[in-house]
Amino acid sequence: MKTPLIILFIFISGLTYGQTEETSQYHRLTVYGKAEDNGNSFHRIDTTRYPNIPGNVKRLLTNGAGLFVSFKSNSEYVKAKWCVTSRGVSPNMTAIAYKGLDIYIKNKEGKWQFAGSGNPATKECNEYTLVDHMDSSEKEFLLYLPLYDEVKSLEVGVSNAAEFQELENPFKKQILVYGSSIAQGASASRPGLAYPAQLSRSTGLNFINLGLSGSAKIEPAVADMIAPMQADLFILDFVPNSTADIVAERTESFIKKIRSEHPETPIIIMQSLVRESGFWNQEVGERVRKQNEQIGIEFKKLQDQGIKNLYFIEGKDLLGDDHEGTVDGTHPTDVGFSRMLEKIQPIVLEVLKKHKII
Amino acid sequence: MKTPLIILFIFISGLTYGQTEETSQYHRLTVYGKAEDNGNSFHRIDTTRYPNIPGNVKRLLTNGAGLFVSFKSNSEYVKAKWCVTSRGVSPNMTAIAYKGLDIYIKNKEGKWQFAGSGNPATKECNEYTLVDHMDSSEKEFLLYLPLYDEVKSLEVGVSNAAEFQELENPFKKQILVYGSSIAQGASASRPGLAYPAQLSRSTGLNFINLGLSGSAKIEPAVADMIAPMQADLFILDFVPNSTADIVAERTESFIKKIRSEHPETPIIIMQSLVRESGFWNQEVGERVRKQNEQIGIEFKKLQDQGIKNLYFIEGKDLLGDDHEGTVDGTHPTDVGFSRMLEKIQPIVLEVLKKHKII
Repeated sequence: MKTPLIILFIFISGLTYGQTEETSQYHRLTVYGKAEDNGNSFHRIDTTRYPNIPGNVKRLLTNGAGLFVSFKSNSEYVKAKWCVTSRGVSPNMTAIAYKGLDIYIKNKEGKWQFAGSGNPATKECNEYTLVDHMDSSEKEFLLYLPLYDEVKSLEVGVSNAAEFQELENPFKKQILVYGSSIAQGASASRPGLAYPAQLSRSTGLNFINLGLSGSAKIEPAVADMIAPMQADLFILDFVPNSTADIVAERTESFIKKIRSEHPETPIIIMQSLVRESGFWNQEVGERVRKQNEQIGIEFKKLQDQGIKNLYFIEGKDLLGDDHEGTVDGTHPTDVGFSRMLEKIQPIVLEVLKKHKII
Repeated sequence: MKTPLIILFIFISGLTYGQTEETSQYHRLTVYGKAEDNGNSFHRIDTTRYPNIPGNVKRLLTNGAGLFVSFKSNSEYVKAKWCVTSRGVSPNMTAIAYKGLDIYIKNKEGKWQFAGSGNPATKECNEYTLVDHMDSSEKEFLLYLPLYDEVKSLEVGVSNAAEFQELENPFKKQILVYGSSIAQGASASRPGLAYPAQLSRSTGLNFINLGLSGSAKIEPAVADMIAPMQADLFILDFVPNSTADIVAERTESFIKKIRSEHPETPIIIMQSLVRESGFWNQEVGERVRKQNEQIGIEFKKLQDQGIKNLYFIEGKDLLGDDHEGTVDGTHPTDVGFSRMLEKIQPIVLEVLKKHKII
């Protein structure tokens, strides 16, 4: 009796395996969240167009921060297959945020509601079921790409029996957020919780993530890249990566370069959040104080020159007052980001309304 | 001229290296946060004393969740050298939370204020400066051990010129928190943000972390272990890991075992938080609904039997209502934990006051 049983077992195993493969359809989708079209690329910007930007900036623009796909389906599950690089995860981030995915579904109130994460394994190519055992009503999905890794490929899988349709980008207009690791999303727990992505879901507008971890240094070549881009609003959150000297040296020409291409577009300039480590580390505390003082001076200088539609967000209290909003003294956790948004979102909304963008 | 220059370079390098080593003093300290004394061990409990508890429980009790050391010093920096295992970090956690450290300093208002993290490298033994460039006033420190890894060794380093003194455990009494991964600390961003640790800092009491990721299954052997332990309050948060059937089968005898050793000690029983994934995944939604219904039935049954000093915390809305409080649909982020604490802390405080524990 032994042989037939083994054959039966192999047969059943094969069948099950075959079924799983057979019953899923996989799709490659248009990647949204980019400042300008670059075809099917998973890079935020096609940096071959901008040979003069620094190497670090080029490298970081290959990271998936702010990128997403959108589709509708009545599948009872959504899977993803995706490949990233082999590099390790920063100790202050989750692998889900760094090299994973998360997915939102439009709920009955018309709001994007979190539904599941795509957990990466410790290898380059991953396969994961983000949400399962749903009812078979048609739903709209929003799936975010990794914040800190370069995506090499992405396929979205649903049941073979289900309907599937790619959707247009659900967000309108275009707001460019140029900033540091904090804008890029360190240390949100998952991609959809980076603060530009949160602003997109709450306003219905495209907040384009141009966060460049450690490398938002206001370089002229970056001004040359950003200034001609389509933009309804600029949010400039570069101070955390730029010394007071760099802020003094480069801010005025950076803003003027934008103004040369966008005479009226509103520009919000943010101070650095106050680094929690700086309450103890006197060097850090003093550095941030100088950076924030200098950006205030630059802002005033530009205003005094008659440059209009400039707005300023203070860094003070951006993380609340209990000192529990960061993972490492610098990078906001989801708590830190939610407190930042409590402060900056009303200001952003006010500017958007004043300029009739919403 | 080449040779002397090279020699000079080696000499300076050696000197710098030597100085760093020379100017730091390293200390091995008493590890607090344990339910019972087990000497110098970095295990939460000496499981050789409890041979009947399940293997998974034994393994998890080697994790550092809730363990900490305390000292005072006027050093301008605090370093740590620590060794953990080689195992990887869960994709829903940061390495800082899983195998790293974080440090708090008592501020001028007498509150523990976050000061820095100990970032692990991707290796077993780490060395990191948690906080640097402080003024030289004397300060009290609280340093938390990793939530999910087994610590093999820990040495705290301060300037050789500084004073250093180990401190007594700053927390009083003993509250046992028996629960799942959520109690163990997944997915707080760092060790000090696990909810029992947050309760300790806000109340001044020892909330002992007996969170057992995936393995809080109300086993009789675990009841036999926990029941005789010193406790001023029990918080039982085991529902997330226990099916409705297990809850039905084991809760009554578990509570009665505790009552046999602690006739009057208050016991708080928590429902499971509502898993965010369960708003879409019908199987998960139904499983949690049944678990929570069953623990309610067990609670009522015990009350009806005249067992006093039992309290109940509902799982509903523990994570707020915007569905943004988890990293993966199950495990709270710092946002999720802060919302949990908004709900459970007032109840815990009320019970503590009612029973004159604070």
